[in-house]
Amino acid sequence: MSRFLNEKYRGLVPYDTAGEHEAGAFVKLNTNESPFPPSPRALARAAEAAGTQNFYPDPDGRELTEKAAEVLGLRPEEVLLTCGSDEALSFIFMAFVRPGTGPGCGAAFPDITYSFYEILAGLNHVSFETIPLSPDFSLPVDRVSRPVGRTLFIANPNSPTGLALPRSAAERIIQGNPDNIVVIDEAYVDFGAESCVPLIRRYDNLLVVQTFSKSRSLAGARLGLCLGQADLIRDLMTLKNSIAPYNISGTTLAAGLGALEDGEYTRANCRTIMENRAFTAEKLRAMNFEVTDSLGNFLLARHPRFGGGELARKLKERGILVRCYSAPEALVPCVRITIGTGEQMESLLEALKSIEEEAR
Amino acid sequence: MSRFLNEKYRGLVPYDTAGEHEAGAFVKLNTNESPFPPSPRALARAAEAAGTQNFYPDPDGRELTEKAAEVLGLRPEEVLLTCGSDEALSFIFMAFVRPGTGPGCGAAFPDITYSFYEILAGLNHVSFETIPLSPDFSLPVDRVSRPVGRTLFIANPNSPTGLALPRSAAERIIQGNPDNIVVIDEAYVDFGAESCVPLIRRYDNLLVVQTFSKSRSLAGARLGLCLGQADLIRDLMTLKNSIAPYNISGTTLAAGLGALEDGEYTRANCRTIMENRAFTAEKLRAMNFEVTDSLGNFLLARHPRFGGGELARKLKERGILVRCYSAPEALVPCVRITIGTGEQMESLLEALKSIEEEAR
Repeated sequence: MSRFLNEKYRGLVPYDTAGEHEAGAFVKLNTNESPFPPSPRALARAAEAAGTQNFYPDPDGRELTEKAAEVLGLRPEEVLLTCGSDEALSFIFMAFVRPGTGPGCGAAFPDITYSFYEILAGLNHVSFETIPLSPDFSLPVDRVSRPVGRTLFIANPNSPTGLALPRSAAERIIQGNPDNIVVIDEAYVDFGAESCVPLIRRYDNLLVVQTFSKSRSLAGARLGLCLGQADLIRDLMTLKNSIAPYNISGTTLAAGLGALEDGEYTRANCRTIMENRAFTAEKLRAMNFEVTDSLGNFLLARHPRFGGGELARKLKERGILVRCYSAPEALVPCVRITIGTGEQMESLLEALKSIEEEAR
Repeated sequence: MSRFLNEKYRGLVPYDTAGEHEAGAFVKLNTNESPFPPSPRALARAAEAAGTQNFYPDPDGRELTEKAAEVLGLRPEEVLLTCGSDEALSFIFMAFVRPGTGPGCGAAFPDITYSFYEILAGLNHVSFETIPLSPDFSLPVDRVSRPVGRTLFIANPNSPTGLALPRSAAERIIQGNPDNIVVIDEAYVDFGAESCVPLIRRYDNLLVVQTFSKSRSLAGARLGLCLGQADLIRDLMTLKNSIAPYNISGTTLAAGLGALEDGEYTRANCRTIMENRAFTAEKLRAMNFEVTDSLGNFLLARHPRFGGGELARKLKERGILVRCYSAPEALVPCVRITIGTGEQMESLLEALKSIEEEAR
């Protein structure tokens, strides 16, 4: 630490990306990326835009904003483009999570969810409360459908459990917290869950966050969406234009447009992932794994015999990366396995078989 | 404004990009972009990386960081990659500009300089002091070589004047402010000014910011560099990993690497810009313009007869965009003209001649 660092950041614990991107020819099932390359249309659009990168990108990303609005059934003023959905979350924390300890202040999110919410709470010096999930990892919907008194962050489907709320349950939560914003983080919504986007017109306290990093095969491009009523989006836009007016690269804007123009490519890939998920879950259960009913592009699985870290290590020895957890306690026995191609799932199952045999 | 926006952001005035990116076939001399496309090597590298954008980019950008360090004569731990140099400035404001009003708190920068410093001061709720430039737009080096008692931001060359300090003068400022960080913003350094990068080893209070948006023809890709001693960079890295662990897209990392591998392409373009700048300045002076001795890829020019806004409007009618100013007062009579290709400069000069003739 330098002698110049502002006091308030001295205890900051950043997001840990260590080990997420190992070099080498691993089957990469650890960060919930799509195993499929970007759509040919996305690549063609990006290639077209590459030669004019000497010019600044359109800071408003008008063409992509309009296309996203059209695809989602929204108006352009209800859409903010962000540099990955993490940037959307960061802007939301800045803009809307109130500092202090009174009613309405701070954030709330499940005790088992995307770990970046807690990091952003720390960064923004706001308090947070964690909502304990049930032992089966389900969200206590009744409890959070009464005023929580904090800005609520609900990943739907949740990560790393994959469990999803139906739209009606999400609506009860939004309705039950009229004085605070409810953020529905739909990073994984395209693999079988119900989106809350159709609720935006009805609730001025709803923000929906989406990403191009999962179903749309553009994790490398850094593109996210923040969706909500126009005055919320305008507030976020003011912040964005005060921090990073040119937050998204020109080729990323182009790739995003191409991806949305090629919706069928995304839908077909999602169908494949859902089939592979069902197949893999069945095989894992047959091998005595407990597996959550995930609607994400991943499975959370635990084996009665192997710990999560142990399993991840043994899989890595066999060329396969999966995610394991040192905290919270309920996740320590688990691994999170990204759903890949059929071939990758076969490799995974074979590796697991060899691990079982070795332990006999 | 929504009813949810945090009080502290209610008066925020964002950076205004309106009119910077007009549609249509204008000769674009208003935002100091390079008129030359990215280097073929940058494009080839980016094209190679495009097909694997379904994977997250390397959050540490190791390959590009190492290459940048090598090119600049630094160690990798002295280099932070940012999403444009604006992100570097934003992280610096967060990390190092102290809130409050005591000695050492707040920021200071010239009264005529890059307007984003003031926006970031507002965003971060820190006070700022502006340092009045002399009537010839030069920086009072003696004054700021005694402790200013604030984090100092010096664009070198300055924008929109183009005036540059020699490294020795910058060093006096850095030496004279040992208890505050001095940020030397070198967005325009490659067009004839002296870089302060060689001073980094000697001063623990120096940060140098560079960009790929100007000389390196990658404004659209969003890539910047923050350079300084390792403990300063580590502080900024902690912030970066708490806000945007994946701040730079994969194809941008690749394009940046290609641009640095093709240093001769950049240097040749810079030589052309410097020649065109000398030629254009001479012609403008012959047309009775006052022109600063700019070492940027732009000229600040004023005509005894036409106001800045008037000239910009008349040029726009002739298909040419330049930058004009409604504030501060000293800039109102001026236009800032980006140096383009020889052909673009000929078009500019012809348009100016036609404006003169029309007014006779």
